[in-house]
Amino acid sequence: MKKFTNISDLKDLNTAVDEAIALKKNPRAHVTLGEGKTVGLLFFNKSLRTRLSTQKAANNLGMHVMVMNFGDEAWNLEYEDGTIMETIRSEHVKEAAKVMSQYCDIICIRAFAGLENKEEDQAEPVLTNFIKYATVPIVNLESATGHPLQALADAITIKEQNTKKRPKVVLSWAPHPKALPHAVANSFIEMMRYQDADFCITNPKGYDLDPEITKGIDIYHDQEEALKDADFVYVKNWCSFEDYGKVNISTREWMMTKEKLGDAKFMHCLPIRRNIVAEDAVLDCDQSLVIEQANNRTYSAQYVLKTLLEN
Amino acid sequence: MKKFTNISDLKDLNTAVDEAIALKKNPRAHVTLGEGKTVGLLFFNKSLRTRLSTQKAANNLGMHVMVMNFGDEAWNLEYEDGTIMETIRSEHVKEAAKVMSQYCDIICIRAFAGLENKEEDQAEPVLTNFIKYATVPIVNLESATGHPLQALADAITIKEQNTKKRPKVVLSWAPHPKALPHAVANSFIEMMRYQDADFCITNPKGYDLDPEITKGIDIYHDQEEALKDADFVYVKNWCSFEDYGKVNISTREWMMTKEKLGDAKFMHCLPIRRNIVAEDAVLDCDQSLVIEQANNRTYSAQYVLKTLLEN
Amino acid sequence: MKKFTNISDLKDLNTAVDEAIALKKNPRAHVTLGEGKTVGLLFFNKSLRTRLSTQKAANNLGMHVMVMNFGDEAWNLEYEDGTIMETIRSEHVKEAAKVMSQYCDIICIRAFAGLENKEEDQAEPVLTNFIKYATVPIVNLESATGHPLQALADAITIKEQNTKKRPKVVLSWAPHPKALPHAVANSFIEMMRYQDADFCITNPKGYDLDPEITKGIDIYHDQEEALKDADFVYVKNWCSFEDYGKVNISTREWMMTKEKLGDAKFMHCLPIRRNIVAEDAVLDCDQSLVIEQANNRTYSAQYVLKTLLEN
Repeated sequence: MKKFTNISDLKDLNTAVDEAIALKKNPRAHVTLGEGKTVGLLFFNKSLRTRLSTQKAANNLGMHVMVMNFGDEAWNLEYEDGTIMETIRSEHVKEAAKVMSQYCDIICIRAFAGLENKEEDQAEPVLTNFIKYATVPIVNLESATGHPLQALADAITIKEQNTKKRPKVVLSWAPHPKALPHAVANSFIEMMRYQDADFCITNPKGYDLDPEITKGIDIYHDQEEALKDADFVYVKNWCSFEDYGKVNISTREWMMTKEKLGDAKFMHCLPIRRNIVAEDAVLDCDQSLVIEQANNRTYSAQYVLKTLLEN
Repeated sequence: MKKFTNISDLKDLNTAVDEAIALKKNPRAHVTLGEGKTVGLLFFNKSLRTRLSTQKAANNLGMHVMVMNFGDEAWNLEYEDGTIMETIRSEHVKEAAKVMSQYCDIICIRAFAGLENKEEDQAEPVLTNFIKYATVPIVNLESATGHPLQALADAITIKEQNTKKRPKVVLSWAPHPKALPHAVANSFIEMMRYQDADFCITNPKGYDLDPEITKGIDIYHDQEEALKDADFVYVKNWCSFEDYGKVNISTREWMMTKEKLGDAKFMHCLPIRRNIVAEDAVLDCDQSLVIEQANNRTYSAQYVLKTLLEN
Repeated sequence: MKKFTNISDLKDLNTAVDEAIALKKNPRAHVTLGEGKTVGLLFFNKSLRTRLSTQKAANNLGMHVMVMNFGDEAWNLEYEDGTIMETIRSEHVKEAAKVMSQYCDIICIRAFAGLENKEEDQAEPVLTNFIKYATVPIVNLESATGHPLQALADAITIKEQNTKKRPKVVLSWAPHPKALPHAVANSFIEMMRYQDADFCITNPKGYDLDPEITKGIDIYHDQEEALKDADFVYVKNWCSFEDYGKVNISTREWMMTKEKLGDAKFMHCLPIRRNIVAEDAVLDCDQSLVIEQANNRTYSAQYVLKTLLEN
């Protein structure tokens, strides 16, 4: 593994999950591996779980952590080639990525979708350019189109909680007052392709995800039908892909309720808006795995950092 | 000790002071105690002494430190139960506190009073909810109504500087252009209840603190009378409790001067507005203990973190 | 060495360069030197290289690092003596510097020129007052008038790259859409005084730097003439010193091009605006040393921190 920006960068998902579970049992077993090594965490957006769990993971490996909030603390970056740089973007990613590669052994980056320009978001200017110009491994802490550390944590959680030979897993769209990116849903779907599971997606008409990503997966526009006999229900809002970046707020009926959930386990990446995405009764019942998913973020990140350090 | 959010959480103030003084003599004596342990410092407000002294204290104990400026770096938190979360508050404290408890062995929080709603401030929504939902010990880095790490540092300072059997200590109100919270004064008063001292408060009419907190303590509205034969004068502004959050800026006569101070030691928690709260001559004379109070913040925090780690 | 705020604080530039190059070969050779020691990095302005390279340098020496973004995280500082502090500046540098000296073994400060008041910038209120009131060594991470850590890194880079007995080094002004400080240019000039080199400056009329700093150095207003037979060309924008803080944006002809550069090595402190300060062809060719200059920032900082720790 030379980088971790997609689930497909993992040599093998099942091995990764098993090794992450081993790290969870003994988090400090490799505390000398990262000695004298530095990980840089670059945030272009807010973060709670990602920020703290990645720091924790790095500390567990004995690494130094340098956190940088790019917007506030450093210069605005230019990503275009050949520009006459006369705007507020005072540093080119070419220099920034090369320079940071000299201070950091691994660079982790969070840069959300802007949701204004589909082509630009799909092109992943921040991540792509850091991969191109950095000379050290890049880790995706949630980019415009993917959040693979979350998906790996989700795979760990499913592995820990699953009791069936072939569980039924449903990704169920939820309402939200703000337009949200597709990253979490995309990576969850990518990850589910490696699982022996009965997997489907349910969302309202007009909210189908990128057809390249959902190809071959059943999409139901009838939530009730999709949820039937589910073992795991992963709830998540995303804005329209077709009518890019738009959000329809009059669809409260898609909120996850205890009744709809039935006996299934409830999953969400957090942060979650209570009584909009899911009702309190869902989040406060024993079937909710959200806190454990967040816990597994540490071991998801630790597996990735450890693997990159070993290469 | 399971948490430290009030002076009353200390098993015994005198023991705490003595142990803190021992730590000050040998700050790195317990540098392996915190190995592999992490303290999270959550700031909802600005900080200089608290931010740096708590980091220093944690480092002295060999702990990892993760600092998070909540407002800028993470999501706005919701504290109400049962809300339909459609405002900018996109994460509930229930999730945030539980999640962070998985990354941190101790969580320290600064969340000032808003000074707009007395009932809300008295209810301490941030601190109370973190205590309720977190599964690790909580430390108060100044909440709406208390600043016990400062009060413990003040107790250390008085112990180091006192030469009398039963010193006279006066808490003296000072003017200030901005409305300031009651936290420092409240905790100082709480701490003084454990001291063998002649303690009184002096403030203008209309500036009496919460009567529940000052119960049984002499309050003088005549500053000169209160300051007579004082050994320690703790100067601090606070806004009106009665007329909650209001500030009367036309009371320059309450500023501490060298003349009023006499031979007493001068104390203040900092930051201090020179020539408004106290004149330069007070801050620049040998009787001022403010720099030493700030120094003792490190050992106050270190005692608390050490005690929580040992439990 | 008691502080490092100017190149002249170095006992000997050549020794510093040689020792920095030795640290570069074996960065972790002194990893126990800083054990239990803390460096505070105070930022009043943005930073990428300085922030990360100084952290890296401190980590290489085994020090703890505490980063503080003063504007956002702490109180606004007052620098004037005797003021009645009723503005937004709620803490005096006297207290701040003394207090921080108790938490940090070394304090490093970045505080750019405001470029509105020449006398104020020349007086260096932040740096001067921290030097005056702090009780620990101060390191300049770029002040209003100097950036000596950059100049030391530049000296390292020249030493590594130079093949001539007495190279010709040219400091060449470049256009820029924003008014920029003189700090980098000033320190580069100060550093060049210790070099056995043929050194000159070239800038448009009206952009001569502080005559006290350039005294005795040839200044050409004809860039072509100055660049003839150059071995190293250090390109940098600065605003007018005479017409203080003003910028003339209609001087695109001063941009560095591959043609003008000839066979010389290209240097710049970064961040750089491509195709304004220098064209892409300059930055992307093998003659560009900018990435290596940034790399050397780590060893420049590490030499300074190590020397201060040893004293």
